[in-house]
Amino acid sequence: MMLDAIADIGRDTRTGGYRRYAWNDADMQLREWFAGEAGARGMDLVEDGNGNQFAWWGAGADALMIGSHLDSVPDGGAYDGPLGVISSFAAVDRLRADGFVPRRPVVVANFADEEGARFGIACAGSQLVTGALEADKALGLKGRDGLTLAEVLTQRGRDPHAVGRTDLLDDVGTFVELHVEQGRSLVHSGSPVGVASSIWPHGRWRLDFCGEANHAGATVMADRRDPMQAYAATVLASRQLATEADARATFGRLEVEPGGTNAIPSRVRAWLDARAADEGALDRLVDDLVIQAQAAAAGGGTTVTLTEESLSPAVDFDGPLRDRLAGLLDAPVLPTGAGHDAGVLSAHLPTAMLFVRNPTGVSHSPAEVADDADCEAGVVALTAVVRELG
Amino acid sequence: MMLDAIADIGRDTRTGGYRRYAWNDADMQLREWFAGEAGARGMDLVEDGNGNQFAWWGAGADALMIGSHLDSVPDGGAYDGPLGVISSFAAVDRLRADGFVPRRPVVVANFADEEGARFGIACAGSQLVTGALEADKALGLKGRDGLTLAEVLTQRGRDPHAVGRTDLLDDVGTFVELHVEQGRSLVHSGSPVGVASSIWPHGRWRLDFCGEANHAGATVMADRRDPMQAYAATVLASRQLATEADARATFGRLEVEPGGTNAIPSRVRAWLDARAADEGALDRLVDDLVIQAQAAAAGGGTTVTLTEESLSPAVDFDGPLRDRLAGLLDAPVLPTGAGHDAGVLSAHLPTAMLFVRNPTGVSHSPAEVADDADCEAGVVALTAVVRELG
Repeated sequence: MMLDAIADIGRDTRTGGYRRYAWNDADMQLREWFAGEAGARGMDLVEDGNGNQFAWWGAGADALMIGSHLDSVPDGGAYDGPLGVISSFAAVDRLRADGFVPRRPVVVANFADEEGARFGIACAGSQLVTGALEADKALGLKGRDGLTLAEVLTQRGRDPHAVGRTDLLDDVGTFVELHVEQGRSLVHSGSPVGVASSIWPHGRWRLDFCGEANHAGATVMADRRDPMQAYAATVLASRQLATEADARATFGRLEVEPGGTNAIPSRVRAWLDARAADEGALDRLVDDLVIQAQAAAAGGGTTVTLTEESLSPAVDFDGPLRDRLAGLLDAPVLPTGAGHDAGVLSAHLPTAMLFVRNPTGVSHSPAEVADDADCEAGVVALTAVVRELG
Repeated sequence: MMLDAIADIGRDTRTGGYRRYAWNDADMQLREWFAGEAGARGMDLVEDGNGNQFAWWGAGADALMIGSHLDSVPDGGAYDGPLGVISSFAAVDRLRADGFVPRRPVVVANFADEEGARFGIACAGSQLVTGALEADKALGLKGRDGLTLAEVLTQRGRDPHAVGRTDLLDDVGTFVELHVEQGRSLVHSGSPVGVASSIWPHGRWRLDFCGEANHAGATVMADRRDPMQAYAATVLASRQLATEADARATFGRLEVEPGGTNAIPSRVRAWLDARAADEGALDRLVDDLVIQAQAAAAGGGTTVTLTEESLSPAVDFDGPLRDRLAGLLDAPVLPTGAGHDAGVLSAHLPTAMLFVRNPTGVSHSPAEVADDADCEAGVVALTAVVRELG
């Protein structure tokens, strides 16, 4: 299994999870690994100004791009991202072993900073190259270490002025991203591989619950203006609202100030990740949650403000391509609540996604897994797709 | 106002709060300041192996100790601690200006690490010198920077082997700590200064809510094992239970793993600060809260475990001394929910506390304040106490 070659890169020994964030040491090792794989196959390596890596088999226009990303969420799993890159190289190997000669260039891609774990914006690499994200906005983004993307790029020997939209994708006619499923639809349908229909609209919002710091022992409960209370009520409301709407709402990141055990917080800053089947449902979910958060805050003498940090519209993948691949592979068609670079590129060129079955449905976790047989089925499917389209 | 002399030490320019933690740069500057004040008055400076500083006026047995501490909680206020130290030096100055000659030594104390902001154990300096905290346990405590107390002491030129119980307090007969009030009892009673009756029993518990990390977008609500939900239910329950019991419960510090916006947490680690009027009430409060936390966790397919990090029993200050000072000062007698070095020392020698009125009741916050006139009344009261007892 080719994943073994990168199994140790960026893995935290305590949690067993991966910490491969844009431009950190692990990410740099993965870039070297990608370059090595391209070189070993005699593929031409191109890195654009945004850090996206492309390995070209052949040259010219109307290329077929396959691939995914190599970075991870904090303590992520081994499959989310790397499975697509590795399956792409494996597909190239099999086609060449069979003597297949593609009619158009085939490009294996590693998109930069898909998870947004460091700078807070997901699919940054694909959003920059397509112009969906402004270079100036991206360059000023700061990670938790206080460094901006511009500073990090300079440290890594890259030119911040090269960040932004390029015409590199003008030579790409189709993109197919293979990815481990992040749910259990394929378990229910009994298929190792599926084809994506759409990506739910999704976004990130920052909620600042503000109150008044005070002594945890000497302040009677009735005199408190404790923002943790409104935060807690909002967490419970988010679950109820998302369940009722068959949507998703998650609070996974939090900062408490001043953060002392014996001090009532002055501020709780929390990030909401919310997704729904359509944009109207997502708007209603967030609106309803804010109403409940504001009511809870006002009841406790505190306040809450909402800041939208990112919002990705719904993506419907190219219908004819989707149907062609589903027919070719005899595979089920399924939507996903997760964002992907394929969703960003689909606004610019015909794009499809293949999903590989995930027996537990768990992802963004060290427990994320896929059976070897299903990974093999993924490579077989991707190989068939390149043979069909390439 | 002598507080002006240290107003800039350890103050965060963004929040306006103090970050004076045991042995950090600000704490080292405050130690130098204390040594300078002792030297300027010709008082003999003694630092014990735990970092407690003592400035002696006279020598011999049965000393009268006054003072408090100079460290702070994260983003703490200017008065909690320093007011007691500064008022003590001011009282010495006034007594000398009046030609007062004490019949017993008078010692001004600065107890080390009262707030426990760095190593997690409050009143560490007084607990170590009295033997209430074992040296080995203290030396192994780690701050958030990963350094142990032993390592920090070595960096600061102190000998870790000198940490622990000493007979230094054998020569102290009485301790009186002056402190800003951390509530509004004195506002209600209309008095600038009060005398403490007791300190509520209080403790710190760590709650580990454990679930399963997963993708925030792709995991349907029903399939989640999200520990943030049980945490939130526990926060709301803590307020209700503490209100019903006329007790205190606070969640002011939190760590979320993995901590990504688009990842359901695998673990929420939260610290509970709880206090009540007596030990039975405190036990019931924590027991009832754990029952509710476990029920919430089980309902969400998650777990919660409780770890006691510290527990301070109730303190009733010396009755005759309390009544003598209340009569001398014509001051009201009041309990407090806050822990103090005076509470630790009261197990070993007659101990009393004076409180100075706090108009807002706010403490452990940059907004903590006391009127200059009330601070002056505090110095007058402490001067009278030293004249009476000294």
